[in-house]
This record gives sequence, C-alpha cells and structure tokens, in this order.
Amino acid sequence: MLSFESDYTTGAHPAILRRLMETNRESLPGYGSDSYCEQAKYKIREACGCPQAEVFFMTGGTQTNAVVIASMLREYEGVIAAQTGHVSIHEAGAIENTGHKVLELPQKEGRIEASVLEQYLTRFAQDENHEHMVFPGMVSLSHPTEYGTLYTKKELEQISAVCKQYRIPLYLDGARLGYGLMSRKSDMTLADIARLCDVFYIGGTKVGALCGEAVVFTAHNMPPHFLTMAKRRGALLAKGRLLGIQFDTLFTDNLYFEISRHAILMAERLKELFTEKGYRFYLQSPTNQQFVILENRKMEALQKQVAFSFWEQFDEAHTVVRFATSWSTSGEDIAELSKLL
Amino acid sequence: MLSFESDYTTGAHPAILRRLMETNRESLPGYGSDSYCEQAKYKIREACGCPQAEVFFMTGGTQTNAVVIASMLREYEGVIAAQTGHVSIHEAGAIENTGHKVLELPQKEGRIEASVLEQYLTRFAQDENHEHMVFPGMVSLSHPTEYGTLYTKKELEQISAVCKQYRIPLYLDGARLGYGLMSRKSDMTLADIARLCDVFYIGGTKVGALCGEAVVFTAHNMPPHFLTMAKRRGALLAKGRLLGIQFDTLFTDNLYFEISRHAILMAERLKELFTEKGYRFYLQSPTNQQFVILENRKMEALQKQVAFSFWEQFDEAHTVVRFATSWSTSGEDIAELSKLL
Amino acid sequence: MLSFESDYTTGAHPAILRRLMETNRESLPGYGSDSYCEQAKYKIREACGCPQAEVFFMTGGTQTNAVVIASMLREYEGVIAAQTGHVSIHEAGAIENTGHKVLELPQKEGRIEASVLEQYLTRFAQDENHEHMVFPGMVSLSHPTEYGTLYTKKELEQISAVCKQYRIPLYLDGARLGYGLMSRKSDMTLADIARLCDVFYIGGTKVGALCGEAVVFTAHNMPPHFLTMAKRRGALLAKGRLLGIQFDTLFTDNLYFEISRHAILMAERLKELFTEKGYRFYLQSPTNQQFVILENRKMEALQKQVAFSFWEQFDEAHTVVRFATSWSTSGEDIAELSKLL
Amino acid sequence: MLSFESDYTTGAHPAILRRLMETNRESLPGYGSDSYCEQAKYKIREACGCPQAEVFFMTGGTQTNAVVIASMLREYEGVIAAQTGHVSIHEAGAIENTGHKVLELPQKEGRIEASVLEQYLTRFAQDENHEHMVFPGMVSLSHPTEYGTLYTKKELEQISAVCKQYRIPLYLDGARLGYGLMSRKSDMTLADIARLCDVFYIGGTKVGALCGEAVVFTAHNMPPHFLTMAKRRGALLAKGRLLGIQFDTLFTDNLYFEISRHAILMAERLKELFTEKGYRFYLQSPTNQQFVILENRKMEALQKQVAFSFWEQFDEAHTVVRFATSWSTSGEDIAELSKLL
Repeated sequence: MLSFESDYTTGAHPAILRRLMETNRESLPGYGSDSYCEQAKYKIREACGCPQAEVFFMTGGTQTNAVVIASMLREYEGVIAAQTGHVSIHEAGAIENTGHKVLELPQKEGRIEASVLEQYLTRFAQDENHEHMVFPGMVSLSHPTEYGTLYTKKELEQISAVCKQYRIPLYLDGARLGYGLMSRKSDMTLADIARLCDVFYIGGTKVGALCGEAVVFTAHNMPPHFLTMAKRRGALLAKGRLLGIQFDTLFTDNLYFEISRHAILMAERLKELFTEKGYRFYLQSPTNQQFVILENRKMEALQKQVAFSFWEQFDEAHTVVRFATSWSTSGEDIAELSKLL
Repeated sequence: MLSFESDYTTGAHPAILRRLMETNRESLPGYGSDSYCEQAKYKIREACGCPQAEVFFMTGGTQTNAVVIASMLREYEGVIAAQTGHVSIHEAGAIENTGHKVLELPQKEGRIEASVLEQYLTRFAQDENHEHMVFPGMVSLSHPTEYGTLYTKKELEQISAVCKQYRIPLYLDGARLGYGLMSRKSDMTLADIARLCDVFYIGGTKVGALCGEAVVFTAHNMPPHFLTMAKRRGALLAKGRLLGIQFDTLFTDNLYFEISRHAILMAERLKELFTEKGYRFYLQSPTNQQFVILENRKMEALQKQVAFSFWEQFDEAHTVVRFATSWSTSGEDIAELSKLL
Repeated sequence: MLSFESDYTTGAHPAILRRLMETNRESLPGYGSDSYCEQAKYKIREACGCPQAEVFFMTGGTQTNAVVIASMLREYEGVIAAQTGHVSIHEAGAIENTGHKVLELPQKEGRIEASVLEQYLTRFAQDENHEHMVFPGMVSLSHPTEYGTLYTKKELEQISAVCKQYRIPLYLDGARLGYGLMSRKSDMTLADIARLCDVFYIGGTKVGALCGEAVVFTAHNMPPHFLTMAKRRGALLAKGRLLGIQFDTLFTDNLYFEISRHAILMAERLKELFTEKGYRFYLQSPTNQQFVILENRKMEALQKQVAFSFWEQFDEAHTVVRFATSWSTSGEDIAELSKLL
Repeated sequence: MLSFESDYTTGAHPAILRRLMETNRESLPGYGSDSYCEQAKYKIREACGCPQAEVFFMTGGTQTNAVVIASMLREYEGVIAAQTGHVSIHEAGAIENTGHKVLELPQKEGRIEASVLEQYLTRFAQDENHEHMVFPGMVSLSHPTEYGTLYTKKELEQISAVCKQYRIPLYLDGARLGYGLMSRKSDMTLADIARLCDVFYIGGTKVGALCGEAVVFTAHNMPPHFLTMAKRRGALLAKGRLLGIQFDTLFTDNLYFEISRHAILMAERLKELFTEKGYRFYLQSPTNQQFVILENRKMEALQKQVAFSFWEQFDEAHTVVRFATSWSTSGEDIAELSKLL
C-alpha cells in the first residue's frame, strides 16, 4: 500500500544503516563518549557556524523537550508555547510530568507572534500578584510548526529580541528542522537558527534516522551535569554510538540537507498534483506536510489504497487529512498517487 | 586495543543489522504498533511460556526501571531494592525523580535474602507510625545482580512467596537476563522467571541489540494506558519498529540465548585463564562479568593493551577490576589476553 | 484605615479564639486523631446530609487543591478547570508541581458550561491520537468562582451528569463556599453540593477561621492512605487540634453559615451603596466580593483611605477593583465608606 | 490522664493565644507581608546575631524540610542525612516527592560524624561513575536529633568545615531547637547555629506554638522567589499573621528560650525520678525527650494512667518508651507520675 502517513514510517536512510554496519565491530566507550559522537558534534558545530556550541544526543522528540525544558527552567518557572504546540497537547503531559506548566499562547497556523509574546510578558511583569503565578522562564517554538508552517527570519528575530529583553531563553523544537531549512519559503540557515536561539534541537527521527535528536546549546549554556539529568530522566543510551554514528552520517556530505531537500521536492509535487486535480488545502504549508481537504466519500475510497493521517473534521462533508513525505518517498509514489486521485 | 570493558561496547549482533536492512523500506505504523513488534511480543510470550503476558518495548534499562516502577507504585509507596542495586545507586536518582523512594535493604553479593525482606515487611506492618513512612509497594531484584551473581530458583521462589504474602508485586531487572539464564549455575528458565515475577524485563542493550529492553507483565497487570505513561516519561520511540525488529530477531531461532551462551562460554574461558595464571577473584560470578583482583602495577601495565573496568579498591596494593564478555567476544580475544597476562 | 481588601485580612471569628483558649490545656493526640477533629467531622457530615462522607482537614486552599487533585488523578490524567480558575493561574503551578496538567476550558464570568465540558470530553474520546495526550481525569470548579459568581443547581446538575457519563470525578473548590450558600441568588444547600460532587472542600480561611479547609469525600472515595499522601506533601499538622477545634466551632450553632450570611449582608449594602452613588459594576456578583469600576482618579483618591484590591484595567480611564466583606466587616465600615464615596 | 506522650499534645503557650486575641481585629495584608511577620523576623535576626539573615515562616516540619531542601538542591542533587533522620524515614517520602534522593549515612544515637561525611564525599568525588549517581548537594542534620541527642559545637564546626570544603550547604532541622539550646549539655547558642549553618529552622510547633517553623537563611542565600516555591508546594498561609504573631511572641522577652528551659527542667526531674526508681535509660538524652526501658508488664500497667510513646522493642521482656516534656508539663505532672512508678 502506498504510504504518505508520516515521515517516520520507513526505516533509516540507507547511508545510515551502511555506517552502522561498517562500524559495528568497533569497540567504543558508552554513554556518548565515543569518537563518532565527538565527530558528529564537531560537524554539527560547523554546520551551525557556532564553534562554541555544546551538542547532546537523545533518542526522541518528547524526551528531548522534557529533558531540555526541565533542566533549563527554575523550579518556579514554566515554558511558553503555542496552544497547538507539541509540548502543549501531544506529549501526554511530559512537561508537566517534570513539574512545570506549559503557558499556552494563542497562535496563527501554529506560530506565536512576537507582539502577543511581548504583551504576555509585560502583563506578567506588571501583575501585582505575579508571585502567586507561574513565572515565564522559557519560550518554546516549533519550526516547522505542527501545521508545517515556518517562521520568517524577521519573525524569529523579533521573538528572539523579546526573549532577550525579558532574559528568557528561546528554545526551538526542530523535530522537522531540515524540512524547514530546505523549504523554498525559508529565508533562514542553520546558522541563523543557532544565532537566534539559546538552545534548539535538530530532529533526526523524522529526517532519515532510526531515532535521535541533536540538542544544540549555543551560548555556553548547557546546564551543568546535563548528562546526569538526561540519565535520571531515562534519556541516556548505553550504546551512545547509535546516535553518534547516525548524526555523523547525517552531517557528512550534507546528507541531512539532501534528505530534507528531497522530501520538500516530493511535497511540492504532491502539492501540484492536488492543485491540478482541484483539491483545496487547509493551509499553505511550505514543508513536507501537506494538509488537504478531502470530500468524505473520496477520503474513504482513497484510504483503501493510500495511507495518510486524519487531521481534523472540516465540515459535515469534508475532512482535513495530512500527506507527509520523507527520504523514502519516490517519484513512483507520486505517480501512483496521481492515478488514484 | 583488546576490549573486555563491558557488554555494550560493540554494536549489534549482525543478524539484527541484517534484519534492519531487509525491512528498511517497509512502511510501518509508528509507536510500537507495527507487525514486527506484534511478532516479537508473540515470540517472547512463547519463550516465557506465558500466553497472557503483555509486552512493551523501551530503549534502555534506567528508563525501563523508572517507567515500570513509577507506573506500578501508588503515590505513597516506594520500591524495595538491594543497597547495591542499579536503581539504588547507579541511575542518578531516576526513581526518586518519579517521586518514589528506593527502600534499600542489605545484600550479599548483590542479592537480597527472603528472610531479610520478610523481616522488613513485618516490621513495617507492625510499626505504629507507619502511616508517616513510605509504604513498601514493590520489590525490585537484579538478575544477574550487579555483581554478576544469580538467585537460585529456590531463593526466587522464597522471595516471590514473601511478596505474595504481603501483596507486593515482584519486579526483576533483567538487563543481563540472558547471561543469567544461560549460566551453568542457573537452575531457572525464562518460564520460571515469568511464573515467579509479576513483571520483569528482558535486556536487549547488553545482550546483542543496539538498544532495547522488553518489559513483560505476567499477570494481566500492565497498568492501563501504559503507552501514555511511557510517552510522558519520554520512553516512546516514534519508529517503534527499531525495537520490534530487534526483539523479533533476538527471539527467532533462539538468537537471544545463543548470544548469551556464547558470552558465558567466553567468560568461562576468561575465568580459567585467570585461574591458571594464579589470579584471585573478588567473588565467584557464574555469568558474563568476572571480577578479578589485580596487583596495581600489573593493572597499570595491562591497561595499556586491554580495556576493562575499574570496580573498586581492594587494598593498598590491589584493585578489583571487571572483565565482561558479549556476543562479539571471540576466541582470539581470549588468546590474545592470555599472552598479555 | 478602612479595609475591604479581602476576606482574609482580619483574624478569626471570636468564637473560634475562645474555643482555642478553652481547650488549650487539654492533652490530645496529634495529626488529626483528636476528639475535636472527630466531632467536627461528625458535624460536617450532618450539615452535608451525607452520613458516609469522609472528612479531612488541611491548612490552606492551594495545598488542599494540590493534595486532593494529585491523590485522585491517575498518573496519565490531568484536571479540567476554567481558564480563570485558581488552580489554573493563581497557585504558582501547584498542580503541575504534582506532575499533572491543568486542562483549561473557556469560561463565562468564571463558570464552565456543561456543554463546553461535554464537547471537550467527546472530542478527546474521539481523537485518534488521544493516547498521546493528557487524559481528562477530574473536573474542578470553584464555587463561588474567582469572580464571585455562582453555579445554579441546574448548572451543577448538568455538569455532574456529564462527569458521571464520562466517569470523571467532580471536585468543587469551596474556598468561599459559605458565601456561595448564603447568597440570595443561591438555590443550593450544602447537601446539594455533597450530592452532586464527588469531593469538595469547605473553606475556613476565608470564612472566619485562622486557617483550615475541610475536604469532604462524598462517595466512599477518599483515596487509601490519604493521610500519608497529605503528610508527604507537607499538609499534615502535628497539632491537628488547631483545625479540629476551629471546624467544630464553625459547625456548632450554624456559625459557618452565620458568618457567611453576615458577610453577604454587608456585601449587599456595599452594592447598594455603589449603585446609589452611580458606580458601575464589572459584573453582577451575588457573593461577598464586589467588582466595581472606578474612574482612575477616584481610585487613587480613595486608596488613601480605604484598602481594596486591584483587579484589572478596564479602559484607559477606569480600573476594576474588588471590595470584599467578611465576618469582621461592620455596619460602621459601610457607613464610613459611604462618606468617602 | 497524665500525658508525656509528646511535645505537641497541648495547645499553645498562653502568651501566644493572648496575642492572637489582642491583634485579632487588626486588618493586615496576607501571605506573610504583615508587620508582625516583619517584627518577628527582626527579632529572630537579633536572636541569631545575624543581621543579614532572611527569615520565612511555614506551618510544619515536614513541609519546611521539603520546601527548603527542594528549593536549594539542583535537579541532579540529593540531600545527605542520617539513616535515622526524620527526612529519611518519618516524612512519608516528602523529600523524594520533590524528586530528590535522601542519601542516608550511618549514625550514632542519631548523629552523623564529620569523618563519615567526609569519607562519603571524597569517595563520591573520586568515583569514576559519579555522573551516573545522585550528587550530594546538601547536608541535613537534626538538632536535637530524633533520639534527643545533641551535636557539640566542635562536632558541628567539623561538619560545617567539611561542607564548606565540598561547597555543600549545611541545613539544620531544628524542630526542637529550643530544647537543644537550653539543655545543660549544650555548648552552643543560636548565634553559633546561625554562624555554622547555611540554613536552619527554629521549630515552633513543638516549642509552644499552635503551628509554625521559622526558616533562617544565614548567608544571603534564600533562593529567589522562595515565596513562589513555598506557594506551589502548598506552604503559604493566606493569614500569614498566624505565624508572624506567634513568632513575634516567642521572640519577645525570651519566651522561646523560657519555654524550652522549662521543658528541660521538667525532663531533668523526669530523669531523676526514673533513675531514683531504678529504671534504665535506652540512651542518655540531654533534652526534653527521655527514652526509658520499661519491663513489659510495668509498661502495660502504667499505660492505663499515663500516656507516653512506644519507641521500640528492647528485648523479649522490655520495651523502650519515650517520655516528652513541653511548655505545659507541670511539677504536679511529675509528682503524679512519681506516685505511679
């Protein structure tokens, strides 16, 4: 069956498996202290244009968000995020599990606006009762957002400026960061992200790895004993090589960007296809997730031959569904889908 | 350099990488709902002789301990473990991070005795102030223990009986379970473990996998919404296939047991070698970890050519070190070590 | 200076201090096991018309909310509350500190509507991804709300019915419950509250006590070892008599209701006063808190002679302020205020 | 019935109730910002000879320990305490509830020795795996200990020096601090305690108050937004005056010390009495708790007329019981007990 269900339904990019094979017999120290981890960190620092960056590998997005946020917040602080943010609604309360509130802000197509953020922070500071409230201690953005949309460089600069003004670190959840960077609509490089954020993560799981996310602290601000905090939250792999080798591969010969560019290309062809056939989109996504409005009967027919994700009810007769592309999406997949539409 | 440092210093058993390759292009649903996970669970149930067993895959030992223990304890309960237990001292407080105390009992070579356990539980029940204390809510054993030693079937039966009497679930941390089962000193099968424990995990990371542990609930006692609890503790992989395929491979054609048997054989040859050469052992370990007492100067010389683990100071002039074997230890490694000793 | 700042600015109703004096020399067992606690519990059960009720005393509202909610929720659950609820915004994250999310619903004058609640619960149940979300595990209402408004019996019945349908306990934060019950707009008795809620608390601190809240479990549903859970959250007083004697006094000769009635009467006179003088109200509150819109210059002038609370900015030229009454508000206070207006 | 059960079985010292009466009608701001709290803090600073001390009031000992310890530890740290410490065994896991481990050290009559502490800290620092362990982040002592024993000034100086060397704050749980200071065996003043500890609390509940403990930070080290952290742990009273007025009274005209001296005097007479009558003591306690070994039949007979606490089984025929004195113990009580022995 044809699958556009998600960007994590197939295995890893073949180059990654190849490297795991090649290095398999090497005896390496555990817990991320091996040479592949070191090499991968070096390459990520280079790619970020941020020589002082500290890099730490984890296995998944929710885990990464929880460990990073909990380790950077003080006890009395919470994290600001969009109401539609992954940390707000789709992590089963992983942030609250660490004792911290997600302070939810209204959003537009998944994005927080700098002015809304500023207003929130100003009001908090002015509230006479704020000692009885959760202090905003971090801002967390998803880029691309959960709706596949992007912040422009200017928007991110504005948000970053507000954060600096209020001395609150800016964190960027980059579960699909590659797709954001390689989108034609993107006006940002990885170096821009590194410059504007205090900490962010480069998603591997959804961009061609078996698992793995690379957290990047850009300002000498990795919390002390971060490894211990990762360990105590169950986020430290004994065979840390599994993450090091994957990221070393992803950041060799631009593979991370090539994978992302390929998926973007496939998404653009999907988009053209749906447009040609007269389908409407729920919103204009410039990344690898496309949100299409299907007539319910069409959807049911299609489901028999193509896997995609239910997103939400549109109206009585229509449904919003998501088509996603990845490293493994091929021109044949698109051609086959074309026949079915 | 020759390495006996640990059982997690090399990659995965080649059969596992092969299967990851073969299945890589298949499009599979995420979060452990794929057919390989299903198949692996089926095979584990068979291997446990426990058709009702519920199986859940996680990525590492500390993570598994924290999620299982936290999800089975009630708020006012703690978990009983040996003072030397991994949960007590080497998980950076992962259990306490979930809000629960580790109630530490004295031990012998890593083992808790049933009589000591019973006495503890009786005293607690009789203590007039016990409403002001942490209630014992679970017993956690490591098998093999952190010292490579084993419980006999009789010992485990006794502990299990005490647990039943006090209605406290018995949990077994099987990070190295294969080595325990294939040891010549073992009088237990996997089915015995499943019969005597309420929940346990079959360690993959240290027995030939890239990562992964299989939690087995033996008595229709998997906590409701366990997946959600795993998710909120950052223990749910998007590409759950990575765990399913590995355990499916490990439980096909007895691979898990073959890997374990091989390492045990290598450990026995290590043991003979050290005995022949006149070395003393810190204790008699029947599993893949051997604790040897080295004269300090000898140790320093050896370290230049062989990797092994520091365990503890023995006396002024001697040190206890650990040699571990795994799927990748070869006869040549032993032969080479022989020359160096 | 004249004070209408809050209902917790003066000490305790004199009858309470008198009883503390009279009983001071008696030697009583600790931790709430004394005869005054027993007596107070009995009287509260009577007042609730709920012979099976289990009652537990705590010292303050935030503490009570956190202990009750955390002890009743399962690990993967959160509590539903109004966006304006005390647990949502004015407890410094006390609920999140217990690891649970506050699932915030839109509100009207502080009240949640049954239909909004039902829609939320239905959508959650239907969401295919709900295993990745926080499960709604409890509904928490404030009555009176933070805006001084009340649920009608019908509204509470509807909400209670929705909770029953979805098998979610209904909790009522009654920090100012007395004022709610004695309001002329109230069509509910304490017995109605007990009948419709699974658990609620009768606020003492804001209704004439020095400190203290009485939690009432109405359905044989006090979590086992609740005392231990209170202890571990720092909510157990050694001299439990302090709470027992106060509630025994409050529930003797209807004192709790008399105090409340008095404050309501004073609030009504306040209301008349402001109305007569042509002031506008931010909303119609039928309880002891009155929200008045003051012209900014008037407010500044008044502040020099009367204490009241800033509530929120109304517009450029006006501010919403709160006047509250309590057991200690006297006719003279009102008369004096009248002169100042 | 005659009662020596504990030091919290009667109400408050009459002077405290009197002040509560006198101030009852005054309208005061909430949450500890009133003038009585300010005054009490000033007097405590004076009594401590520590003008820079920051003082915060809480309601009970377990609450105080949990809030102070959790707010001073970093995420990856635990608190060192004696195996017999209140935080270790009699707080129902309140410290673990905050996510932190209690690192239990062996003790003698409730006391930790500086050398044992130093050895522990040295070993930790030298352990190659310590990044996988809980970091010692604080030392918590009880003074008097749970066995009524005392540290000498020299012992506390030694422990304080070890803490300074390892840059770990020293915390002293002074639930019964007054009795420690007024004991004839004490060679320390409150100023010594303030000089040697980074933070400690002056217990009120067990020394004549209705409730209340005064936390003293001695080195400009009160964690920022401590009020917010207290609030989120349910430890902030709305009517903070209740604590302020009590401590203001206790630290006026040396009342705190007078109460303590009285109880010590009564305890000495108890001691003489038991000695005269030929009873043995479990240990020599110089404070208000006396641990007597009773023949079981004698104990049962006595229990009918005197309340005391079971401590532990001594042997088949004997039991250790505790007799405690307080502000309310009178010469008549002792005389009456004398007749019964």
